[in-house]
Amino acid sequence: MIKTRLTDRFELEHPIVSAPMAFAAGGRLAAAVTNAGALGLIGGGYGDTDWLEQAFSDAGNTRVGCGLITWKLAEQPEVLQVVLDRDPAAMFLSFGDPMPFAGQIAEAGIPLICQVQTLRDARRAAEAGAAVIVAQGSEAGGHGERRATLTLVPEVADWLAGNAPEVLLLAAGGIADGRGLAAALMLGADGVLVGSRLWASAEADVSQAMVAAAISATGDDTIRSTVMDRARLLNWPDRYTARVLQNAFTDRWHNDLAGLLAQAETESAKWKAGWAEGDPERANTFVGEAAGLIHDRPSAAEIIARMSHEADALLRGASGRLG
Amino acid sequence: MIKTRLTDRFELEHPIVSAPMAFAAGGRLAAAVTNAGALGLIGGGYGDTDWLEQAFSDAGNTRVGCGLITWKLAEQPEVLQVVLDRDPAAMFLSFGDPMPFAGQIAEAGIPLICQVQTLRDARRAAEAGAAVIVAQGSEAGGHGERRATLTLVPEVADWLAGNAPEVLLLAAGGIADGRGLAAALMLGADGVLVGSRLWASAEADVSQAMVAAAISATGDDTIRSTVMDRARLLNWPDRYTARVLQNAFTDRWHNDLAGLLAQAETESAKWKAGWAEGDPERANTFVGEAAGLIHDRPSAAEIIARMSHEADALLRGASGRLG
Repeated sequence: MIKTRLTDRFELEHPIVSAPMAFAAGGRLAAAVTNAGALGLIGGGYGDTDWLEQAFSDAGNTRVGCGLITWKLAEQPEVLQVVLDRDPAAMFLSFGDPMPFAGQIAEAGIPLICQVQTLRDARRAAEAGAAVIVAQGSEAGGHGERRATLTLVPEVADWLAGNAPEVLLLAAGGIADGRGLAAALMLGADGVLVGSRLWASAEADVSQAMVAAAISATGDDTIRSTVMDRARLLNWPDRYTARVLQNAFTDRWHNDLAGLLAQAETESAKWKAGWAEGDPERANTFVGEAAGLIHDRPSAAEIIARMSHEADALLRGASGRLG
Repeated sequence: MIKTRLTDRFELEHPIVSAPMAFAAGGRLAAAVTNAGALGLIGGGYGDTDWLEQAFSDAGNTRVGCGLITWKLAEQPEVLQVVLDRDPAAMFLSFGDPMPFAGQIAEAGIPLICQVQTLRDARRAAEAGAAVIVAQGSEAGGHGERRATLTLVPEVADWLAGNAPEVLLLAAGGIADGRGLAAALMLGADGVLVGSRLWASAEADVSQAMVAAAISATGDDTIRSTVMDRARLLNWPDRYTARVLQNAFTDRWHNDLAGLLAQAETESAKWKAGWAEGDPERANTFVGEAAGLIHDRPSAAEIIARMSHEADALLRGASGRLG
């Protein structure tokens, strides 16, 4: 059993938090993760309150946290109270300035987890009073930015050590097995946020066809792009792109955004119809470079047990590498 | 002292190889790295034979290896024999298909190190008979591609385990201290290739102004772009970009390649004049995201001792994280 400040603070058996993946991380996945001894987060995403109520209801009495997309929350700030009223184990914010919401979250007594994509973001998150900062690298699936996990984590760790040593640090992006977990601890993280690997779990709300596509793919087969968001007519800020499996849609439009916008209505309708059916050919599969490390679709509990067991063995054997 | 297959195979004290950085890694740096108990590589880059002869001469009797840019070597294959005649400790190839050169290198009895940027490249390198594969992530300084070190290393490790277990694996990109070295070992690497951190060493052929710019920078301040190569009129294949510190030049041209090409002669002359003076304002500073982990310019020996000592302590203490 790996002990870190994260396991102490949130009374976990494993230093693992599930990423609050929009659409994919409903109440079933979040609850399964918490019940496996990690911390499960509902992916509140764009803040559909009916969906959120259903997700918390699906989680039942299991204690789970919830994530929201910050720039979208800023357009409909009333959603925050809907979530806080469910007394989540943690409130997770990513992709925007957390400052306007930090006070309300603190008042509710809920720990704030801020996911950041740059050192600059990390400073802002600490200023907002985050209890936990998640340093997310570009290798992550779905939305993110340019920095890599391997450099962002130690750089944020150094900054926190000098400026806000009480803030916990998680690594996110590219971590799908015990090797990634052990590596993250070496880099100075207190634990990891796991997206893609749990996206491909039995409890995730993801079509079998998309998971199968990810299992068939290598890590070479993903791309960071904005064309999926443009097709969905989502107003993501320019700095954020999303990593997906490349397919005919990204092949056609990734280098021709103007062309896509010129026929946005038709293309958007086609993409959304594919998305509704979970079709990896017509819509895109939101998974990270870790696709190359994913070979099956077990339960969340099995995934967490494997990661923890493998990391445990690596840490236990580490001193054996010294001559 | 960390023992791995790399330290065994090359009789090293530390599982560290210096990146053969074009222009920056001359004979002085390569020799200093070897003399510190790691493996030093001369950065033969674009294959200027006068420069190469000088570099080997500067390395004196110290045993060093040498790297060449593969696509450039393909244009002037006779350069390979010039290097092989110096009986290098290893021949390092990156950025192109190593297959056409593998036979000649094997015949000379020199170990072939292939740096790769994708899983597909790694398969090709193994097929070419590489003794060592370096999995290079996008966080690296200078030339590279899209994959991240954190996912590429374990994915290549898995492939090698099933297909070519005798081939050694190094991690490259973003590794600048003992945390990165320890993390790389957890990911399944036999050692690391260090670029940026040794680029900022006393023995590297880099201007003080550029090193100072890197020291002042955070990891947020770099960008992957092709405009520096276009300004230098270098025919890099499209898939390779280079990571540099952002400055007025990248701000102006990164999103306007057509504009740059329209006045290539003037812009190229200005950039090259800045480069000749080591000016980080007019030319670009080739350093990776690890810039955020670099705070000084010590000797190569000091850098290697620090990395090794820090990694040693992390590995020694790793089992203490288990409850």
